[in-house]
Amino acid sequence: MGSTEDLDYPQIIVQYSNGFLISKVMFTACELGVFDLLLESGEPLSSDAIAACLGTSTMGMKRLLDACVGLKLLAVEMTQERALYRNTEISSIYLTKSSPKSQYHIMMYYSNTVYLCWQYLADAVREGRNQYERAFGVSSRDPFGAMYRSDEEMLKFMAGQNSVWSICGRDVLAAFDLSPFTQIYDLGGGGGALAQECVSLYPNSTVTIYDLPKVVQVAREQFVSPEERQISFHEG
Amino acid sequence: MGSTEDLDYPQIIVQYSNGFLISKVMFTACELGVFDLLLESGEPLSSDAIAACLGTSTMGMKRLLDACVGLKLLAVEMTQERALYRNTEISSIYLTKSSPKSQYHIMMYYSNTVYLCWQYLADAVREGRNQYERAFGVSSRDPFGAMYRSDEEMLKFMAGQNSVWSICGRDVLAAFDLSPFTQIYDLGGGGGALAQECVSLYPNSTVTIYDLPKVVQVAREQFVSPEERQISFHEG
Repeated sequence: MGSTEDLDYPQIIVQYSNGFLISKVMFTACELGVFDLLLESGEPLSSDAIAACLGTSTMGMKRLLDACVGLKLLAVEMTQERALYRNTEISSIYLTKSSPKSQYHIMMYYSNTVYLCWQYLADAVREGRNQYERAFGVSSRDPFGAMYRSDEEMLKFMAGQNSVWSICGRDVLAAFDLSPFTQIYDLGGGGGALAQECVSLYPNSTVTIYDLPKVVQVAREQFVSPEERQISFHEG
Repeated sequence: MGSTEDLDYPQIIVQYSNGFLISKVMFTACELGVFDLLLESGEPLSSDAIAACLGTSTMGMKRLLDACVGLKLLAVEMTQERALYRNTEISSIYLTKSSPKSQYHIMMYYSNTVYLCWQYLADAVREGRNQYERAFGVSSRDPFGAMYRSDEEMLKFMAGQNSVWSICGRDVLAAFDLSPFTQIYDLGGGGGALAQECVSLYPNSTVTIYDLPKVVQVAREQFVSPEERQISFHEG
């Protein structure tokens, strides 16, 4: 769309206005398990069947599914009797929980934490600080204290970061040739997905993840297998 | 971007994830008055000057302005000493409060009402109803009772609807030739912007706006001048 057309009808402004609606449609379909159900079923399903399986309103689910079709996150096949929905390829790879490249966890973090903080973006700009206090009643003087305000929140954040590294970690690590370095430190390495990409890309490297003690504890318990000899931890 | 590239790196998923951030950057720059200030000043301003005029944090404002530059809502000129920001043409037309095509009011409605309701989209799909109760503590059985929960909220909604009609009302009305009709009813005509587009496009028509009594009262007082002889009201 050229700028002349934009001045006549502000396509870009309308798109920007609708951005949050698009985010929330995708986040919500993930949260409710639409893509997981369609992956597991192995066949296209009607909106009634999806609503029944996921325990939602039939009308609400139909509208959500049709919005996902509009966004090309689902495809629909029209039969004489009804519409049948199935995942697009991109949804199977990135929006299902079990996929190695799943973005589910970062979306849940965006949807349930970041989205609400950004409700107060005007206050953030006025005050020059993050908005955990308004959004969650948690003091924001210590950013990691706010982000890690409970073990559950910390776990969500770590899983979310791991989602991101699973799709772009390799590109980051391959931007420079790190093969001469055999001892690598990952400061704030969290759940270890970047470290895992690193030892995969540079098989002669060992990576030490440096992070807060409670982060290291969770990473050891839930994210990095003890058999992973090339990855170790340092609490600090 | 082709689908093969998308399968390798999910550009579309990342864009959809970021949608709400883009919406909130634009909404917030509108709410804080960035575009209005730059229109009034008549010359490019530094981020420090903008922050001082608008009473915000300097760092917070600089980040907001740079985000707007990335979205092409502002342009920046680099001098040896500092960066100077100015409106792009599209921002002057659509994002300033005083412009005839201003989208300010619908953005404030989206940002402060719809955005928060959509925080609960998963609940909305589960329950098959809107989320005014969770977002604002207002029963949602009567949709207009929830939307018009205060005179201030009703006014915001009416001003927002008028913003939208100011850019697409004429196209809607021109989709069919309505010139044979001289008596036109606008059911739920609210603030009257569509009626005004109608009498402008069809000078021989008269339009009767039909709406709730309290909506009609506000429309008469604040939106439709008594001199506008071609527009009348019907309360119902």
